[in-house]
Amino acid sequence: MSLHQETAPGTPKVTQALAEWVVSIKGSDIQPEVRREGLRTFVNWVGCAVGGASHETADRAMAAVKPFSGKPTSTVIGRTEKLDALHAALLNGITSHVLDYDDTHLKTIIHPAGPVASALLALAEARQISGYDLLTALIVGVEVECRIGNAVYPHHYDRGWHITGTAGVFGAAAAVGKVIGLNVQQMCWAFGLAATQSSGLREMFGTMTKSFHPGRAAQNGMFAALLAEANYDSSERAIEAPRGFASVMSDKQDYSEILDDLGTRWESALNSYKPFACGIVIHPTIDGCIQLRDELGDDRIRQIKSVELTTHPLVLELTGKTNPKTGLEGKFSVYHSAAAALLKGDGAPTAFTDELVQDPEIIALRDKTKATADKNCHEASVDILVTFEDGTTVSKHIERAIGSKDVPLTDEQIDHKFTVQSALVVGDAVTASLLETSWKLEELKDAADVARASVPSSAQSKAAAE
Amino acid sequence: MSLHQETAPGTPKVTQALAEWVVSIKGSDIQPEVRREGLRTFVNWVGCAVGGASHETADRAMAAVKPFSGKPTSTVIGRTEKLDALHAALLNGITSHVLDYDDTHLKTIIHPAGPVASALLALAEARQISGYDLLTALIVGVEVECRIGNAVYPHHYDRGWHITGTAGVFGAAAAVGKVIGLNVQQMCWAFGLAATQSSGLREMFGTMTKSFHPGRAAQNGMFAALLAEANYDSSERAIEAPRGFASVMSDKQDYSEILDDLGTRWESALNSYKPFACGIVIHPTIDGCIQLRDELGDDRIRQIKSVELTTHPLVLELTGKTNPKTGLEGKFSVYHSAAAALLKGDGAPTAFTDELVQDPEIIALRDKTKATADKNCHEASVDILVTFEDGTTVSKHIERAIGSKDVPLTDEQIDHKFTVQSALVVGDAVTASLLETSWKLEELKDAADVARASVPSSAQSKAAAE
Repeated sequence: MSLHQETAPGTPKVTQALAEWVVSIKGSDIQPEVRREGLRTFVNWVGCAVGGASHETADRAMAAVKPFSGKPTSTVIGRTEKLDALHAALLNGITSHVLDYDDTHLKTIIHPAGPVASALLALAEARQISGYDLLTALIVGVEVECRIGNAVYPHHYDRGWHITGTAGVFGAAAAVGKVIGLNVQQMCWAFGLAATQSSGLREMFGTMTKSFHPGRAAQNGMFAALLAEANYDSSERAIEAPRGFASVMSDKQDYSEILDDLGTRWESALNSYKPFACGIVIHPTIDGCIQLRDELGDDRIRQIKSVELTTHPLVLELTGKTNPKTGLEGKFSVYHSAAAALLKGDGAPTAFTDELVQDPEIIALRDKTKATADKNCHEASVDILVTFEDGTTVSKHIERAIGSKDVPLTDEQIDHKFTVQSALVVGDAVTASLLETSWKLEELKDAADVARASVPSSAQSKAAAE
Repeated sequence: MSLHQETAPGTPKVTQALAEWVVSIKGSDIQPEVRREGLRTFVNWVGCAVGGASHETADRAMAAVKPFSGKPTSTVIGRTEKLDALHAALLNGITSHVLDYDDTHLKTIIHPAGPVASALLALAEARQISGYDLLTALIVGVEVECRIGNAVYPHHYDRGWHITGTAGVFGAAAAVGKVIGLNVQQMCWAFGLAATQSSGLREMFGTMTKSFHPGRAAQNGMFAALLAEANYDSSERAIEAPRGFASVMSDKQDYSEILDDLGTRWESALNSYKPFACGIVIHPTIDGCIQLRDELGDDRIRQIKSVELTTHPLVLELTGKTNPKTGLEGKFSVYHSAAAALLKGDGAPTAFTDELVQDPEIIALRDKTKATADKNCHEASVDILVTFEDGTTVSKHIERAIGSKDVPLTDEQIDHKFTVQSALVVGDAVTASLLETSWKLEELKDAADVARASVPSSAQSKAAAE
């Protein structure tokens, strides 16, 4: 007998192999098109972190955190306050996810950038990191979290785990471990410390605690790497051990998803960027309803008698709320989302305000909207049937929504998404300069320039005057 | 359809009811004998936190934490450094568990004080708490974590969760929420934020990350309560929801264990205190071997040809390491533990040093020791058969070891345990004064007096001179 249960015969040394890969890969080993997608991931993430920076969720987290913060090295993106790097990582992760507007690895529904980029940019103000190295670490971290997610998805998610938190902590640990130069043994320990902090329940959806998950994953993953750097030891097979992450937290363990084609097949290059500020499963409905509005015109929309949606059952499981009361609840209502898209042509954060969810016109159209679950309908598709008061009908089939890998957002659409949300929080001038700085990440000697460029202008001028 | 899955028909509102109880209970509602056991729990915990304070595990955690610590309000028990209250809670939880010498709720193998007391005493230096109120909160927190543990044990533990971490975070949230005066809704949110951070894998046993679990549970539970205080909202049914703690992390959910006889049946009064510095399952073996040494004398012990242990299978599963290399690994070796008890009469931290584990005499006796798993042997019992070189034998049956509820440590034995380990770290004078202050907890206007009394004397005199 040994201290630990033996792994099943033939189980590869997953943790060790992954650690070796993370430690050894160089930025120049990553193909240009993969780096380009990483940069799009970064820019999209910066826009979302600024976009959520003034949200009440961030204010409340800040109120709790501030009395305990250490040396304020690190900007909370889009705000005037600084915190120590660990707490700044938490806040950045919360703000980048709070509008449900960030990015999605469609195979696992992981929102990859939040846990990883939030940790890296916060750390960049505590220990200098070049923009090039930060992008390398971001791509590596996203790769790690998505591959670990693939290994356990969907069973892990179905059990009730919010995979952005549970897998994200590994991504943050890998990324931070990479930039601070952990050796292979320390990287194994960092994965062990990440595994033992892996957490986040889907029960929290619809509350402020949902966006706590990527934030805490960023903070916990960074802390795992920092502890490992101080030689705080841990299991060296935390992913694959019988009582490790994959076996304890999932009924499926497919380690080939983690180890096969490392460095040639890139999950991080499969990232997609949400065009709408809500769960990905409603996107086909919003896309279709906006198209219908554009085709039919406002007058005709106001003559609608009923709307019938046919969707995959998961859509109703996740977003079947018929009577939302708040903007946040509206994100979990395919009915509200359809009504806002048809009446306002909107799926941005402005479509999910308390005001709009309580608007009588929206409520009236929402109440005319029904949805039917059909297993034969793909998760990424929808059929919309509109019946007018005169008895005529019009239908729309969406095979894949805008923002999916089949219909990716262009760079210009990412710019537009960035600008619309960021300008509301930090104004036009800061937004324009921040967007430009973000796209130039790889040329920056100091990646922290991005964090500093995100600060609202009144605070920037105050700092300059001091 | 609603945003969340409905709970099964008849599921009680566990989270809400528990929150109502925590918020409403008064210190005077707790029976004197329960408060007395709570005080023994506290004193035992202080001794263990000091005893582990100079361990390398604490040094490495401190090295990682210090650059990020906030305002240093709170003493790390038994050390000269102060940290912010959240980080001090982490360190106190690590040090109190690192020697595997703390307390045990035998029904769940939870080590209850670590997550709860570590948070409370750290907080007591940031926000004033009377000794009486701290003890009330400690008892309430321990009650919450043990009841939640009962509801899911043993399935939850068998799946691979380190229950001291996973249940402990609820205890810390309840205790801190109690002393900072959360209302019922905020306490529900605190439980939600605790549930979504609940984590800690048994794979980490035998590494520094095991004692990270009670530390992080203390820190995370405190943070859950502080976020709830700032009205950071969360699920209000995080324990019992279909995607809540109990269903996601266990196959067993017995909510009557949480709700029945609240305030009359006290799990916290069932706490026990380890007489030996290792996992509870080896205690019968060490107790029996020390008794054999006392009965036989050193000369006869040196004529042993073989030792045969008959134990419950769990003992070998947890502590079946035949060839330990380090003191830490020695704690997971029933063979080493038997040899150290027979040759040295020792089960204290001094029995689990690297030196003793590598001692040739100990190794020789360890190698003569065999163990057989027998399902019919109770987990808390052992049969020991010693055969001497002359062919004679002697046997010893231990039905229940010292430190169990049947053979509890007396106050004097708790004092002895406290003194032996504390004196090694902070010296005799500080130890004597700290022990006295700890027993007087309920009379202290400021519970932080205990933390201050734990500081090594050189630092105390320096502070007095300033």
